[in-house]
Amino acid sequence: MNAHIITIGDEIIIGQTLNTNAAFIGNALIEAEIDVKKTSVVGDNEADILNEFKECWEKGDLVVVTGGLGPTHDDITLNCIVKFFDTELVQDDDVLEDVKRIFERRGREMTKLNESQALVPKIGTPIRNRIGTAPGVWIEKDNKIFISMPGVPFEMQDMMEYFIIPTLKSKVKNTGFITRRIILQTTGIPESFLFERLGDMDELLEGSKMAFLPSQFGVKLRITSTGANEEEALNKLSEIEQKIRNKAGRYVFAKGEELLENVVSRLLKERGLTIALAESCTGGNISNLLTNISGSSEYFERGVISYSNGSKVEMLKVDEDALTQYGAVSLEVAMQMAEGIRRISGTELGLSVTGILGPKGATTGKPVGLVFIGISDDKVCTAKKFLFGDDRMLNKQRATQAALEVLRRHLLGINLDD
Amino acid sequence: MNAHIITIGDEIIIGQTLNTNAAFIGNALIEAEIDVKKTSVVGDNEADILNEFKECWEKGDLVVVTGGLGPTHDDITLNCIVKFFDTELVQDDDVLEDVKRIFERRGREMTKLNESQALVPKIGTPIRNRIGTAPGVWIEKDNKIFISMPGVPFEMQDMMEYFIIPTLKSKVKNTGFITRRIILQTTGIPESFLFERLGDMDELLEGSKMAFLPSQFGVKLRITSTGANEEEALNKLSEIEQKIRNKAGRYVFAKGEELLENVVSRLLKERGLTIALAESCTGGNISNLLTNISGSSEYFERGVISYSNGSKVEMLKVDEDALTQYGAVSLEVAMQMAEGIRRISGTELGLSVTGILGPKGATTGKPVGLVFIGISDDKVCTAKKFLFGDDRMLNKQRATQAALEVLRRHLLGINLDD
Repeated sequence: MNAHIITIGDEIIIGQTLNTNAAFIGNALIEAEIDVKKTSVVGDNEADILNEFKECWEKGDLVVVTGGLGPTHDDITLNCIVKFFDTELVQDDDVLEDVKRIFERRGREMTKLNESQALVPKIGTPIRNRIGTAPGVWIEKDNKIFISMPGVPFEMQDMMEYFIIPTLKSKVKNTGFITRRIILQTTGIPESFLFERLGDMDELLEGSKMAFLPSQFGVKLRITSTGANEEEALNKLSEIEQKIRNKAGRYVFAKGEELLENVVSRLLKERGLTIALAESCTGGNISNLLTNISGSSEYFERGVISYSNGSKVEMLKVDEDALTQYGAVSLEVAMQMAEGIRRISGTELGLSVTGILGPKGATTGKPVGLVFIGISDDKVCTAKKFLFGDDRMLNKQRATQAALEVLRRHLLGINLDD
Repeated sequence: MNAHIITIGDEIIIGQTLNTNAAFIGNALIEAEIDVKKTSVVGDNEADILNEFKECWEKGDLVVVTGGLGPTHDDITLNCIVKFFDTELVQDDDVLEDVKRIFERRGREMTKLNESQALVPKIGTPIRNRIGTAPGVWIEKDNKIFISMPGVPFEMQDMMEYFIIPTLKSKVKNTGFITRRIILQTTGIPESFLFERLGDMDELLEGSKMAFLPSQFGVKLRITSTGANEEEALNKLSEIEQKIRNKAGRYVFAKGEELLENVVSRLLKERGLTIALAESCTGGNISNLLTNISGSSEYFERGVISYSNGSKVEMLKVDEDALTQYGAVSLEVAMQMAEGIRRISGTELGLSVTGILGPKGATTGKPVGLVFIGISDDKVCTAKKFLFGDDRMLNKQRATQAALEVLRRHLLGINLDD
């Protein structure tokens, strides 16, 4: 089955909103063994929408559309569907009940505008929206499938998960071979160095495929293998994974899409360890990521964002002399911050960051991008120096990722130096 | 001039990477008065890439391609360009010098792989990459323009800004009318309520266009007007803006794309006020946003992430009795946290958040989504109750946005209640 994904909305075309919906749908279809040939975005313009419907409907077996189903005047997808399939809108009583129920639950009065959400194209079947008011539509014609969903991410995602993906899976034909993918995530090594370290690609891959996906968080490796059955494909992947781990294992922090903060949170939970953070330049970003995870209160005790020198002395017991002698951005102060927050909080671990993110703040011998990360437990207290680039936001993200990696390596007993 | 944007890369199709490049390019072209008809994404597959080149080249005056120009084996865009335009690759000496210079600056040895980045299609002109090693390509043929850029966001953005947009602007013909857009960002009011409050759309807009863009951060209004000249278009926009402000002004926190954290940071700077944060459930997210801004040390003194009850008592001087009597998630504790952090830090303002983000943590009378936000200065200390939804990450973002909005309203003297 060959799929085309269409996202509708000026806000995407003109770059005001990122197309997270196409990413979600693409991922879900690929997981269901449906080949996504193309994703496209068109604005809230009838001619452009109809043109894109036509192109995709001709070429694909499956067209998945998202966006433009809301209650306001700029939502025109439903009318385009009516024109494209030469059908009409009819009221669906179940959908009307759903909409009414949502307004009751919210304790709000329903308007005429909201009532119109119960109109669905006669040719299709409504897909009930369990979160919001706009239903989706499922249309089958000429052995092809056309699906339209609202653009609100959570509503679309719920429809995909409870109805669309299970239904599509039951319709996908077995092609006689199976494709499987794995992701290995690395950090702390640049793309070209990793490439060289992995050596001859043909020898490594033996017919499988691998992509290098670099970002400020590290380089992801996506490996794709095909086999006569699932076992064969997975065996190929596992062989390649082993070869990569032999050559660059210390840099691999996760298999799959698990974020580095989830990896270290899992390690902390498994070992029953608690941690406290002392952040200066990262401004709370590390604590923020560590507390994104449900149950984080099991291991995260507290954090201090010691932006001013005064707060470093008062809250972390950093030595005023050290601040004067070495400066706030120094190996010594990073170590004292890590040690200080650990002692004050009574946790097993203390993690600290101090640095100059830029564009301002550089001094003689201390350029923008200079960052020290400290870590402390009851046996050791150490810190590591990093030199990132010129961009403030990139530096914040790289310092955050580096601090989490320092923590990971500490927990696993991997040397901090490359 | 009619543009099509093509992004190349399996990682986008399968949803591993968000298409931030298409968003950036779309925005830049629209600002240059170039009409973007469509953006599309195809995988690292020669047939799909060639097919998309063909479709877009036939329909548009301008095709902008990004991705697939890197040094590794999965980068095939350059070969597709060679096939599509029936040309060949030649070495460009200037580009080779650029690549050599980058490696010298980094103090790293150059590999054969890196040298190959100096090969460019004979039919085009290289666009020099001032940040990385892969050059872009500019091709003109049959009165149309084809541009190819690397997929690394910062490299692509630099090429767009220093060369591509200025060059395109010099080529765009004057159509006799000018389109201008503004964004008004609101928060704290749901889309359908805002829609009702703004009344009759035709009366409001008089031929201009308006889109409602809802997210967890609020509802953006994008208004588009066209006129015989810039002044006429801007006058129409300013009239509509005034009508909207008369009807829903208190909810409008920014004109343009300025983030709420930037708005409050600007207000704090202008007034010479300092602030300290006491965050519980938001885990450092508010501090993180406030310190994303260069120069934040002028107003941001410190933050405390008081996740445990102990840290609330020890670091913020919250009354143990209040914690027992009302619980950590209460109006009283929110107020004490705001007052405590302000007094300890010696700042003019204290801002606090305490809540239950879920999925765990609900108790009788305190459901998931319950959040209290406190604010304190030397005259008042107050707190406000919010009830968000079931999703942890959404709740964190909504609580963060609500806290920033509480701060904004406090600074501007707008009543906290709707």
